[in-house]
Amino acid sequence: MKAWVLDDPGQLRLTEKPVPQPGHSEVLIRIDAIAFCAGDISIITRGPPALIEGGKPFNKNFTPGHEYMGTVVRLGAGVDEFAIGDRVVVEVHYGCGRCERCRAGMYTACLNYGMNYAGHDKGHRANGFTTDGGFCEYAVNHVSTLVHVPEGVGDEEATLIVTAGTAMYALDTLGGLIAGESVVVLGPGAIGLMVTAVAKALGADPVILTGTRDARLALGTRMGADHVINIRNEDPLAAVKRITGGRGVNYVVEASGDPGSLDLATEMLKRGGKVCLVGFPEKPASVDLAKLIRQHISVFGIRGEGRSATHRCAALVAQKRLEPKLIHTHTFPLEDVPTAFRYARDRIEDAIKVVVTMRR
Amino acid sequence: MKAWVLDDPGQLRLTEKPVPQPGHSEVLIRIDAIAFCAGDISIITRGPPALIEGGKPFNKNFTPGHEYMGTVVRLGAGVDEFAIGDRVVVEVHYGCGRCERCRAGMYTACLNYGMNYAGHDKGHRANGFTTDGGFCEYAVNHVSTLVHVPEGVGDEEATLIVTAGTAMYALDTLGGLIAGESVVVLGPGAIGLMVTAVAKALGADPVILTGTRDARLALGTRMGADHVINIRNEDPLAAVKRITGGRGVNYVVEASGDPGSLDLATEMLKRGGKVCLVGFPEKPASVDLAKLIRQHISVFGIRGEGRSATHRCAALVAQKRLEPKLIHTHTFPLEDVPTAFRYARDRIEDAIKVVVTMRR
Amino acid sequence: MKAWVLDDPGQLRLTEKPVPQPGHSEVLIRIDAIAFCAGDISIITRGPPALIEGGKPFNKNFTPGHEYMGTVVRLGAGVDEFAIGDRVVVEVHYGCGRCERCRAGMYTACLNYGMNYAGHDKGHRANGFTTDGGFCEYAVNHVSTLVHVPEGVGDEEATLIVTAGTAMYALDTLGGLIAGESVVVLGPGAIGLMVTAVAKALGADPVILTGTRDARLALGTRMGADHVINIRNEDPLAAVKRITGGRGVNYVVEASGDPGSLDLATEMLKRGGKVCLVGFPEKPASVDLAKLIRQHISVFGIRGEGRSATHRCAALVAQKRLEPKLIHTHTFPLEDVPTAFRYARDRIEDAIKVVVTMRR
Amino acid sequence: MKAWVLDDPGQLRLTEKPVPQPGHSEVLIRIDAIAFCAGDISIITRGPPALIEGGKPFNKNFTPGHEYMGTVVRLGAGVDEFAIGDRVVVEVHYGCGRCERCRAGMYTACLNYGMNYAGHDKGHRANGFTTDGGFCEYAVNHVSTLVHVPEGVGDEEATLIVTAGTAMYALDTLGGLIAGESVVVLGPGAIGLMVTAVAKALGADPVILTGTRDARLALGTRMGADHVINIRNEDPLAAVKRITGGRGVNYVVEASGDPGSLDLATEMLKRGGKVCLVGFPEKPASVDLAKLIRQHISVFGIRGEGRSATHRCAALVAQKRLEPKLIHTHTFPLEDVPTAFRYARDRIEDAIKVVVTMRR
Repeated sequence: MKAWVLDDPGQLRLTEKPVPQPGHSEVLIRIDAIAFCAGDISIITRGPPALIEGGKPFNKNFTPGHEYMGTVVRLGAGVDEFAIGDRVVVEVHYGCGRCERCRAGMYTACLNYGMNYAGHDKGHRANGFTTDGGFCEYAVNHVSTLVHVPEGVGDEEATLIVTAGTAMYALDTLGGLIAGESVVVLGPGAIGLMVTAVAKALGADPVILTGTRDARLALGTRMGADHVINIRNEDPLAAVKRITGGRGVNYVVEASGDPGSLDLATEMLKRGGKVCLVGFPEKPASVDLAKLIRQHISVFGIRGEGRSATHRCAALVAQKRLEPKLIHTHTFPLEDVPTAFRYARDRIEDAIKVVVTMRR
Repeated sequence: MKAWVLDDPGQLRLTEKPVPQPGHSEVLIRIDAIAFCAGDISIITRGPPALIEGGKPFNKNFTPGHEYMGTVVRLGAGVDEFAIGDRVVVEVHYGCGRCERCRAGMYTACLNYGMNYAGHDKGHRANGFTTDGGFCEYAVNHVSTLVHVPEGVGDEEATLIVTAGTAMYALDTLGGLIAGESVVVLGPGAIGLMVTAVAKALGADPVILTGTRDARLALGTRMGADHVINIRNEDPLAAVKRITGGRGVNYVVEASGDPGSLDLATEMLKRGGKVCLVGFPEKPASVDLAKLIRQHISVFGIRGEGRSATHRCAALVAQKRLEPKLIHTHTFPLEDVPTAFRYARDRIEDAIKVVVTMRR
Repeated sequence: MKAWVLDDPGQLRLTEKPVPQPGHSEVLIRIDAIAFCAGDISIITRGPPALIEGGKPFNKNFTPGHEYMGTVVRLGAGVDEFAIGDRVVVEVHYGCGRCERCRAGMYTACLNYGMNYAGHDKGHRANGFTTDGGFCEYAVNHVSTLVHVPEGVGDEEATLIVTAGTAMYALDTLGGLIAGESVVVLGPGAIGLMVTAVAKALGADPVILTGTRDARLALGTRMGADHVINIRNEDPLAAVKRITGGRGVNYVVEASGDPGSLDLATEMLKRGGKVCLVGFPEKPASVDLAKLIRQHISVFGIRGEGRSATHRCAALVAQKRLEPKLIHTHTFPLEDVPTAFRYARDRIEDAIKVVVTMRR
Repeated sequence: MKAWVLDDPGQLRLTEKPVPQPGHSEVLIRIDAIAFCAGDISIITRGPPALIEGGKPFNKNFTPGHEYMGTVVRLGAGVDEFAIGDRVVVEVHYGCGRCERCRAGMYTACLNYGMNYAGHDKGHRANGFTTDGGFCEYAVNHVSTLVHVPEGVGDEEATLIVTAGTAMYALDTLGGLIAGESVVVLGPGAIGLMVTAVAKALGADPVILTGTRDARLALGTRMGADHVINIRNEDPLAAVKRITGGRGVNYVVEASGDPGSLDLATEMLKRGGKVCLVGFPEKPASVDLAKLIRQHISVFGIRGEGRSATHRCAALVAQKRLEPKLIHTHTFPLEDVPTAFRYARDRIEDAIKVVVTMRR
């Protein structure tokens, strides 16, 4: 099959690999579409931070990419939840099933993350992070990571159900039942926009989105934000106080990666409020921990799309309560992965979600 | 290897079976001791209720038994958590790892329970219920079900760590942090006594145990009960009201199997209280559901030893905060399983926990 | 002020009472509308079950009614959350704030329920249950029980936000985040219909409603049910299995009061599922407790509208995600409370929610 | 009555104040003993951080002190939970009972904290923080903040049950049921030592305490630490890795106030672990937020002794599972409060808990 692999940092090369074969409880998926995520850009450019054995995936025939969907074309033994021809979207994380976290249902915090190499193969997989990903034609995945694509949802949009899953997991972690509660989303990137949309789909009110680009904020409004704040024009803390009558909000989702955001979030929150961190800052943040204590603030670092979040998002999409496709901006064929990568990395033409499709 | 199998109901026969071989993530255990549980007696006598394919395990070469411990003698691929020679106790339930419940960490409520037969093998195992159990010399188990036996704990006592796990799971379900809260345990069988001991180890106060036999209640006192009530001599509800100054208790664990117990529990509880059901009634109960609503009562049916309960119990045993051996009354060699079965079933010599050992 | 009081069972009499005065943290509300609830009918007919001192409210100048809304007309000391002229809907339960349950936020399970009489006045109030209710012109309520009526919502509809609050509390208790999960609602009474609507507003899928009357079920469809089952025509268990591909559902809300419903719910649920009981059966139910254990089922009796459920519902109504008015069928003036009572009790003209308004 | 008041920063003066009178649901307590807490020292020296109106309590006739116990000498109306002569220990925080947090049971995160001044009196109290405290002869407190002192517990020790309450709340927040789970406590101050003791009382294993003073660490061992690490002699991260076989721990309680501790805690934790912050750093910390995300870490700032933590601790003390008196080092009479303050502030004679008693 055709597969893109990573040579030196930033160097992608199209090559041939054997089609993998599904084992017990696995299926072979013909990949139909895959989206670029910020994580992919980081891995392609710098490697994942200390996750892959030796720390770096370069020149190892590694295929990146994790936000993919496709069609089931072969069933491993013991599979009856899916049939050949089913369209599925794939969760990134497959837990080892044996560690303390997996036994507790926290499969995206698996203690055997990356432990899938010879000698200590614990079964964990993170597509495109610790195992081969989806910038290729076929992939094998465990049935526990598959979610049916709702009828009427196109390939490009389906890839974004995984993105929505991360947003759902953030909001699940913060409260789960957030109907009628106030949420600030910091940063209108793909994740921030999706958090906005999922928060509104769940009935949060008001949903406030901050950012620096008016076009992004306008899209945020279309996706469900009740208020948008361009922080170039208005102090975001003052704006949140104004909107909430001075009370502050219940939850903040930090999706900007700005190191100052945690202190800002603490100021925006009501006492006893919660912050979820999903944007990766590139450098250490200065944090007023004493204020976290005095204000009784909880801070949640999360990874991935735990607690069946992707299943929930697929159901919301099926019900037309969530439209991931609003953040889809560009599509390229498999041959043009380097161009797609460039669009995603450099936000060319204000690219948000750049999708690669394998239409045959 | 030597293995007991179930012929007709109640008929156990000693035969030879091949030693099973561990697959990936599994180990081969040389069984050193196994205890009889009420569930075994039920299966040997009547078969499990609708759990095994076709509903009945009779004349199928089935080996019962699930409360066992032993020594690791062979490692399957990918196992480094355990070494040859390690002494381990084995949890009963191994979830499929792919259903909605397993993904949420509820592996004892696996939706693929019993689905481990040809054609739909989903990987679920329940030792001695849906797969071969431990009245034999060797068993293969997945590493996720193994718990190290603390140093200084004998074989017989180690088997009872599984029993304690069920007690822990009940108390985890009811509240987890129960220190300083009041608990009534209905029924001083093996499970009821162990719930008493675990509740006290966790700091519950008072712990009240009810029953009909003074010897059992005296044992309950040794295991940690602050108060025991012989319901032949005193009305249990009146006694609970007396002990609690009329306030009632926070939690009731129903371990007697008496169909009237749920109504009794509702009366014993403070408004907003919780009941955990672990004793199987043989017939339908009459329940005042309106009172459950008015009193804001929650009722939890649970099975098994979920949420790593067995690990917690092993740790309490290692710290000398829990002494499962207090309920151990009889020991027989492997050859005498039918006699052991009779002692357990008929409570001969007031047997509580009857253990079979494989001392060589 | 004008106030209806209860003489003998079923006998309502219009009389005069002094307008109450708000104390610290309280406001005086001019009642604008009040709906009949099944609880009111029960109290007026038979008295509340063991809740009011002496058990019976008859011939004690007691004013029933608890689903009311109105306008703030006077502020007690220390109130700045509300202003004169604010339109508010009122939660039924005001906890004592001092018992174990209230300290834990479970104010509808207050241990001092009904303890608001001379000699042991603990401050608890349940409007129209243990203290005077709302079939009158004015009422005093604590600010913690008040919720702002969203703009554009009429008086009649606003009363139903309290009804919706009970539905929300049921779904919060079952899971909170139920988006993408399946729910069966048994019984299309006012509460059952509202549970249907709230479940759908939160993204549950599918939402299945059972009942015996086609008109009610058709209304259920309008309110959000994905499937309705007329149990006169189809076995409800078979229907649920058909709809869910044999898998069963995550949650059942029992709103029919049928004593057989708990066993039926257990059959409908996936292993590990949950039932919330909100319909009061008139007689004891026969319940297969052993099946609750084997299937790992949790059962929640709840009362009232805890965990700020009414606030959440007001927010959903403001966002047009919930339309309580769909169950409003009849309106009468204050003078016609006995007629309204008759309509509600006898379901005249298929009455669902009968509202009394005080338009001046 | 005699009362100490705060003049200029650090200046305490003994004066006379009228004995306060209990209102509805309150009691008058004759104070028998009160301990110094780090919070008192901070308030006496610098004022509470932005909590008291205007920010500063100086020269306002303010009486500090919050860790007190005493004897009930008068009952307000509606009190039957306590009788004259009862010995009680007093929780610091009394919530307003009307805000979103109090309604949810989070009374130590009350949104009306400090709002107990003329014009917006919302009822909230924090003894010795926002209202007069206990360095005096009598205090009035609401019954919801009182806990019975177990029999046989002396006055000095009883004051420390409040300290233990904070430790319990930290561990409740982290997991509640921590039996068999690993805990690191950073900092062997009064709170750190008490967290150590409560963690062990709840069955945590191992409990690891870090610090710089051998005497404190030796006391930590007496209080329940399984391992102590003197960070002057050994790198604490390396030590934790050594003790846990490289796996890291489940929970860290940060009680040192060192700004570098959060990054250290993140390194010590297993993926998916949790940190509770109880020590106030004096300056902003540098925090690697990206690592919090990648490692799926949760961080909880908490204040006070929520969720009835003090009740739980009193029960553990009654059961002899917790001995707060181990941290009691000095006692002074009421007249010597300034000396006691100096001992506590300057850790004279390695003072840990300095108690002032009112023995008459």
